[in-house]
Amino acid sequence: MATTYAVIMAGGAGTRFWPASRNARPKQLLPLGSSTGVTLIAATRDRLAETVTGDRLYVVTAERLATATAAALPGVPKSHILAEPAPRNTAAAVAWSAATIARRDPEALVGVFPSDHFIVDETEFRFVVARALEGARAGYLTTIGVVPTRPETGYGYIERGNEIESGLFRAARFIEKPILPVAEEYVAGRKHLWNAGMFFFRADAMLKAIETHLPALAAGIAEIGAAEAKGEAAGAAAVARIFPTLPSISLDHGVMEKSANVAVVPGDFGWNDVGSWQSTWELAAKDAAGNALPDGTIAVDASGNLVADLTTAGSARDATKKRRFALVGVSDLVLVETDDAVLVIPRDRAQDVRAVVEALKTRGELDKL
Amino acid sequence: MATTYAVIMAGGAGTRFWPASRNARPKQLLPLGSSTGVTLIAATRDRLAETVTGDRLYVVTAERLATATAAALPGVPKSHILAEPAPRNTAAAVAWSAATIARRDPEALVGVFPSDHFIVDETEFRFVVARALEGARAGYLTTIGVVPTRPETGYGYIERGNEIESGLFRAARFIEKPILPVAEEYVAGRKHLWNAGMFFFRADAMLKAIETHLPALAAGIAEIGAAEAKGEAAGAAAVARIFPTLPSISLDHGVMEKSANVAVVPGDFGWNDVGSWQSTWELAAKDAAGNALPDGTIAVDASGNLVADLTTAGSARDATKKRRFALVGVSDLVLVETDDAVLVIPRDRAQDVRAVVEALKTRGELDKL
Repeated sequence: MATTYAVIMAGGAGTRFWPASRNARPKQLLPLGSSTGVTLIAATRDRLAETVTGDRLYVVTAERLATATAAALPGVPKSHILAEPAPRNTAAAVAWSAATIARRDPEALVGVFPSDHFIVDETEFRFVVARALEGARAGYLTTIGVVPTRPETGYGYIERGNEIESGLFRAARFIEKPILPVAEEYVAGRKHLWNAGMFFFRADAMLKAIETHLPALAAGIAEIGAAEAKGEAAGAAAVARIFPTLPSISLDHGVMEKSANVAVVPGDFGWNDVGSWQSTWELAAKDAAGNALPDGTIAVDASGNLVADLTTAGSARDATKKRRFALVGVSDLVLVETDDAVLVIPRDRAQDVRAVVEALKTRGELDKL
Repeated sequence: MATTYAVIMAGGAGTRFWPASRNARPKQLLPLGSSTGVTLIAATRDRLAETVTGDRLYVVTAERLATATAAALPGVPKSHILAEPAPRNTAAAVAWSAATIARRDPEALVGVFPSDHFIVDETEFRFVVARALEGARAGYLTTIGVVPTRPETGYGYIERGNEIESGLFRAARFIEKPILPVAEEYVAGRKHLWNAGMFFFRADAMLKAIETHLPALAAGIAEIGAAEAKGEAAGAAAVARIFPTLPSISLDHGVMEKSANVAVVPGDFGWNDVGSWQSTWELAAKDAAGNALPDGTIAVDASGNLVADLTTAGSARDATKKRRFALVGVSDLVLVETDDAVLVIPRDRAQDVRAVVEALKTRGELDKL
């Protein structure tokens, strides 16, 4: 029986969580949506613990994040952390990790998981993952499609086709972010699912599909693999030389949309891509007035606010070291504090954090990015 | 010719500036209304520098504030800092300082100044002070009455009577905080002035008035004076024993309202009692959108905000050590940061800081008060 491996995709940078997320500490390394300080990437690993043990867990991340990523995932062997010298999108990341796993176990069943999403119902999630792995075992390139809860225009959708077997459907189409009326039709029609960026496959099946649809990527990855077989130094040199030249394309576009044997498992387990401070607030534990606040905060006539204290003081285990927050007469605000920056923004403008990041770039304040 | 002395009244505690103002660091020890980090008390001293030199400057403060007050006023002799073991209101503070100065110079002209007010036009202020000192020299217990700019119901008023000489008027009446229609009449009638808590007198004239109107206070102060004449230790013991038992009454109520020879000099020099974060914002240097922000703050669609960074980082001389603030889409907010607390409150609710202070008291979080 084939063995299951997992790949956590942790290359993302992302500025939607400024000042918390930085080049050096992107979203997956933040304890977003957690009341216990667990980073999103560690939560991802914990969620997979019953499916995949540490020795069969791999991580693809950016070179500059490798140390911080390893620190966030103690117990993952250093050789399992694949550090990209330059970002080349998901097809390259999946190809590299699939090839790495295939050398160890060609018939491996591989699940690919984003490192920076939040899942409410972990039991249901594991059930859906098990079903998707069954699809992979049967030879399908399988995805999970999240049952939409609103006509979201910020996500891609997957249209499901015929049912192959209980809970496993043909993936009829991959669709880019739709306009609102289209998204509304999708939600009403109940045949479209959110593309959550999770993939399940036999390593050999994925590598074959990549060879068919992205031959240049397959050749580059094969070259890296040959060098890695010669030893660590040769492998590192090949990665540094070849990886930045690989075609940059998403796995969806480059492989999934073009393959015939693609399946989707609908999942309904409370999924949130933690895309903004708004979604962090949605996920957070809140008081009766809808405030998500540090312990001990004084809230007077305050509702719907999010305060994230990501300073050293705020992260202290000793409660007496933490700062005391007081909110009076304010609603639906986000206040984020780090050791070197403070952001105040209404929740419903959370996407406009971009404007701050642009201003910092314009000013050349790169240390604040 | 009589010599001029000044007494700075610096006993106030005050919670309207939480989290900046604390029991251990009240308003006068904060750099409010200043872009250069000068505390209100140091600004008061600087403003008097042309009128009174350091050797003739006295300060009345609370015992627990004596060290911090001395540190804020380098150059003031330790013996000139009169530390009250318990607050006994302004009559006792004035009596003690007047008696102290009178022992050195019975004919001294004394000006009493609150330590925590802000004055825009210092030249005009000095001119008005000089006029008030002339009144004092002529034997009047003289006050300065600020020409009202609005029907403020939070201040006491002084009604001016006949003009004694150019710019010096009889004080016809001292009036408690009026209700709004009355305050409106006062402003329209142009005979009423704000009581700004400044007093000018010959030391011997004030001591005589206190003896007449507050004999118990006069007796207590005389007893303290007799002990102080015996030496430092005896004086300190007498202060500790007697001062807390002195009658607690304001100079206005206890002396000024009851005396016949009371005068007032109208003054119009841009006076602000810095009573709340709202008035701090009014005083602060602002950008075109009405924001008073730390240097380097990124403001996007933000107007009328006040950010006071009173943390160690915010007070650093080295700009690279300061935190970067970013405000997006917020208006008329106050954000105050100290090393151990953070306040967010709309400017027009600044008085409601009291609710936070009450909550801290209820919780017993005395370290945050």
